[in-house]
Amino acid sequence: MHFLSDNAAAVHPQVWRALHDANAADTPYDTDRLSRALDDSFSALFGRDVAVLWMATGTAANCLALASMVAPHGAVFCHHEAHIENDEGGAPGFFTHGAKLVLAGGADARLTAESVAARLDAIRDDVHQVPVQAISLTQASELGCCYRPDDLAAIAEIARARSLRLHMDGARFANAVAFLGCTPAEACGPVDALSFGCVKNGAMNAEAVVFFDPTLADVARRQRKRAGQLQSKGRFLAAQLHAMISDGLWLANARAANAAAAEIAGGAGARLLHPVEANEIFLRCTADERAALRTQGFGFYDWGPDAARFVTAWDTRDEHALALARALQAL
Amino acid sequence: MHFLSDNAAAVHPQVWRALHDANAADTPYDTDRLSRALDDSFSALFGRDVAVLWMATGTAANCLALASMVAPHGAVFCHHEAHIENDEGGAPGFFTHGAKLVLAGGADARLTAESVAARLDAIRDDVHQVPVQAISLTQASELGCCYRPDDLAAIAEIARARSLRLHMDGARFANAVAFLGCTPAEACGPVDALSFGCVKNGAMNAEAVVFFDPTLADVARRQRKRAGQLQSKGRFLAAQLHAMISDGLWLANARAANAAAAEIAGGAGARLLHPVEANEIFLRCTADERAALRTQGFGFYDWGPDAARFVTAWDTRDEHALALARALQAL
Amino acid sequence: MHFLSDNAAAVHPQVWRALHDANAADTPYDTDRLSRALDDSFSALFGRDVAVLWMATGTAANCLALASMVAPHGAVFCHHEAHIENDEGGAPGFFTHGAKLVLAGGADARLTAESVAARLDAIRDDVHQVPVQAISLTQASELGCCYRPDDLAAIAEIARARSLRLHMDGARFANAVAFLGCTPAEACGPVDALSFGCVKNGAMNAEAVVFFDPTLADVARRQRKRAGQLQSKGRFLAAQLHAMISDGLWLANARAANAAAAEIAGGAGARLLHPVEANEIFLRCTADERAALRTQGFGFYDWGPDAARFVTAWDTRDEHALALARALQAL
Amino acid sequence: MHFLSDNAAAVHPQVWRALHDANAADTPYDTDRLSRALDDSFSALFGRDVAVLWMATGTAANCLALASMVAPHGAVFCHHEAHIENDEGGAPGFFTHGAKLVLAGGADARLTAESVAARLDAIRDDVHQVPVQAISLTQASELGCCYRPDDLAAIAEIARARSLRLHMDGARFANAVAFLGCTPAEACGPVDALSFGCVKNGAMNAEAVVFFDPTLADVARRQRKRAGQLQSKGRFLAAQLHAMISDGLWLANARAANAAAAEIAGGAGARLLHPVEANEIFLRCTADERAALRTQGFGFYDWGPDAARFVTAWDTRDEHALALARALQAL
Repeated sequence: MHFLSDNAAAVHPQVWRALHDANAADTPYDTDRLSRALDDSFSALFGRDVAVLWMATGTAANCLALASMVAPHGAVFCHHEAHIENDEGGAPGFFTHGAKLVLAGGADARLTAESVAARLDAIRDDVHQVPVQAISLTQASELGCCYRPDDLAAIAEIARARSLRLHMDGARFANAVAFLGCTPAEACGPVDALSFGCVKNGAMNAEAVVFFDPTLADVARRQRKRAGQLQSKGRFLAAQLHAMISDGLWLANARAANAAAAEIAGGAGARLLHPVEANEIFLRCTADERAALRTQGFGFYDWGPDAARFVTAWDTRDEHALALARALQAL
Repeated sequence: MHFLSDNAAAVHPQVWRALHDANAADTPYDTDRLSRALDDSFSALFGRDVAVLWMATGTAANCLALASMVAPHGAVFCHHEAHIENDEGGAPGFFTHGAKLVLAGGADARLTAESVAARLDAIRDDVHQVPVQAISLTQASELGCCYRPDDLAAIAEIARARSLRLHMDGARFANAVAFLGCTPAEACGPVDALSFGCVKNGAMNAEAVVFFDPTLADVARRQRKRAGQLQSKGRFLAAQLHAMISDGLWLANARAANAAAAEIAGGAGARLLHPVEANEIFLRCTADERAALRTQGFGFYDWGPDAARFVTAWDTRDEHALALARALQAL
Repeated sequence: MHFLSDNAAAVHPQVWRALHDANAADTPYDTDRLSRALDDSFSALFGRDVAVLWMATGTAANCLALASMVAPHGAVFCHHEAHIENDEGGAPGFFTHGAKLVLAGGADARLTAESVAARLDAIRDDVHQVPVQAISLTQASELGCCYRPDDLAAIAEIARARSLRLHMDGARFANAVAFLGCTPAEACGPVDALSFGCVKNGAMNAEAVVFFDPTLADVARRQRKRAGQLQSKGRFLAAQLHAMISDGLWLANARAANAAAAEIAGGAGARLLHPVEANEIFLRCTADERAALRTQGFGFYDWGPDAARFVTAWDTRDEHALALARALQAL
Repeated sequence: MHFLSDNAAAVHPQVWRALHDANAADTPYDTDRLSRALDDSFSALFGRDVAVLWMATGTAANCLALASMVAPHGAVFCHHEAHIENDEGGAPGFFTHGAKLVLAGGADARLTAESVAARLDAIRDDVHQVPVQAISLTQASELGCCYRPDDLAAIAEIARARSLRLHMDGARFANAVAFLGCTPAEACGPVDALSFGCVKNGAMNAEAVVFFDPTLADVARRQRKRAGQLQSKGRFLAAQLHAMISDGLWLANARAANAAAAEIAGGAGARLLHPVEANEIFLRCTADERAALRTQGFGFYDWGPDAARFVTAWDTRDEHALALARALQAL
């Protein structure tokens, strides 16, 4: 019973179908019919004109977006738990040619307007210190929690007042939208670019970078090629994205994963370290308890010496979630 | 009748089969069973121990290999027609952090030992000039011609004598092996790394970087992640590579493409600008003639004002190749 | 009465003399007689074979040394108060092509072996996290305190055990040696490279990077040119360095600055925020008190809302130091 | 008798005087009185508002200017003899984060409007090819020849029509102005930034980057710090620049060097490979003849197997120039 991560789950049958439908040769790179239709499809989803680029990985999606926003001599502001800080092997430094990441804290891996403002105020505006030029938020956060639209508005106001760009790492954006019960536009707020995650949600190897400011996309198109990310059979990535957002597959898959997580959270009770607002469960758990769970066939990651992380996915089976909930209760 | 490029052809049925077989969740990134089996499979193919990394694009494969070989203050030597110089959007400069490309000529887009040595001799060994640290060869070349094993040995000797690394861009390596009728090891000679192309030969979006010096692969693994190229469902890339090299699919596909090209070359006769030693045909052709061919339904690229390029693929239909051969004869 | 910084003090007469002595044309860059003599002079100073490169700024000296030690995909470990983190405008990211700075705390802006080890242990050895490849220490620290030889040995042992390089930012190395009363070799411990500061200590615009591992210097020589730091009349930089270390001028100047700082520290008494072990004094001081001091003609920097920083230099006049000491006592 | 280069000549007495006058402590970096006065002084010289940054080397001046003009994914167009291509150790790639240099030819190391336009036309406007974003001209050229104002206007028109920036490497700009007999503004034409050389013309280690578009200077100020080029005693660099341009010292020195070169050119006669329009003489000269000249005490560089280069400076002695002229005639 697999709760290690959503990042290696199976590909959804509708995605497979879309891949096969794209098999016939079309023009290469992003000039094919499917790639050219992405802007329209996502514009409809977000209710405004957007420019969309497919990318093969979330790391590349995040870093491409950031590189379109900050100069090499600038900095990106993010939470110290952010994926770009901890889990992307230095990719932000690579794509931005050495821009810094400036870190702040905040409960549940969410930045707050107050912590952002305070940290920004401490940076002198001279050539000796690196100027922050963008803020990156993660929705849902690395600890499985969601920014509410009001949270986003408060941080966006800080960004606006200081002429900073705003980026959202939405590796689990679908899970956040499913939890918040709002529109996609409300769940990302007034960001300049969103990494719209699909791989963790049923796709094979396609993510979307949604640019709400199309001038950023022009630079990003050049940089996508320069980063060796422009696939010649790009139609297969476009096909995956269309499959995800047509007929609401992205939301259906996220709801399934969230429901399994909620089921497990119910069993975890007071052990929970963070509210379960997406498809990740973090809970207190001794080494002995973890060993016991593993003996029962549950796969998951340790989270430091006294905790564990469980992640559900679109294809988590109900009976597995239920079994885990019961096992946690029985601990 | 499509002769624009091999880079947008359909995916081969055996590759589809392998993709589906890989659907069940496995561990992420390159820790899955298929990814871990790549070294062995390619070691068998080349008859020596190699370390293999999958990559999604040929540009990334080339540039990752080069970045493992040259320092940012160094240079890569290549033909002025090389893909890394002309068609990768500056990716070599990105992956290598600004290393230079030093260019030389040579008939049919092939470097010669003489031209390499002469150009290298002209570079002063002081800090004011950029030291060449690697040579990159393209097999088959950008103009569809193949280095013979003796050619490679002569250039490799220069590299060895000057402690330069050797890289091969094998986007159409299969076509070269099929044409040369030699072993894969003979067709690449003593290179340190080979970009083993699959996308143009029936795969969807997987290329292999074959490191003959495994110490280079250690750096490349870090850099693959840092470049946002490490897919979490990497098993789908590994699956494509296994499908290509097991049962000789790579050679069968290349032979089919080469045969179609040979058929067309027969029709082109004295118009040929370069020997046809792979799956590309370059021929003299006026604007009027090109218009006539297009009227007959042939798709291809102009190659300057007086020439045209035709490319065949694994799925080029015999009757299309034959039709083109006849149309060329009839011009 | 100027206590803002030592970084804008006058040039020492012996340095002026050396500059004039170097006026006659010699061969360019670092091929002149004076530049070629640097290795020997500094080898004598440190009692072992070193390779020395002149640089015009401390930022360039630090970053050139670091760039010779860490790969672009690596990281440098340093104190969160370090100059490379806070005051070099992102130069480490530029010179290293995007390597990260990994931060830790420690009293008086000094790292401790414990804090270093704990932070290093938290980094996973996989491609998703950035590997630390070097530790950078500042002697004297940004808060004017000195590592003892035992402190250095303990940190060096950690570095050795994990195959990390060791760098020392010695912008005020002379002040540290003067305070510690030990040899230069003891004051830097087993580091691989030392930024030996001169500009704050009576030079015009020359710093020395002392490489204890000469293989690092070979890369650094290329990178110095590539960074636009190789002056054609390099003899004028070499002349400054020779002037500083011949006849012990560097130590005499540092002792003078330290003595002035000690005088002031005596007046500051319980206000001191950190031990005064070099030429910087940090003390508690309200806004009203700072205003009063400025009215009396003292120039200095605020250090947050409730503190002030005073810096002495080789040319701080005794009567100014005494006047400040008395003014502080009288507050 | 030294004709190797002008880059290691002595420092002019007026520059020494200015250096000494700047000795008293002032505020650091570029906040001192002299640095702040640079914009006004150079604005007067060029008859329009400019922003000026001092730099220690010509390589840094060139590359800082270029980095303010081109994106990492862009390219700089220059002559294949340009200093940035051949003699800066890859610095352009470093400062621009990997931008390419696109090369063209042209007699006497001067680009022509025709060659520029033809090469630019050959670059496709797609993401696979690197877009040229700036043109860099060298005045006087690497072979000692000058662009006339009409030449500059023709190239500037191409730049304007394609929205390209224009940079001038003026390492020997003073020599060009002296030769052309025009104003400084006429000698550089409508460029966006000029590297105004002083080191080869009597300064110690200060060059000026003159930004005619002040928005470029804002980025350059950040990048100067990030490149470790911001000296804390910047007043000594500003002092050198003021000394050069006040009282016309820059032109007087250049005229002296040009006159010596003209004297030598008179002796060289039909041996000249290029017109002598600045302070460099390139002439046909066999190995035996070069040996003979060296026996007579003349120092100079070989220029390939059959030629030699002689360079004069502000302090070339008349009798030395005359002696060389006679020796050449006597060959």
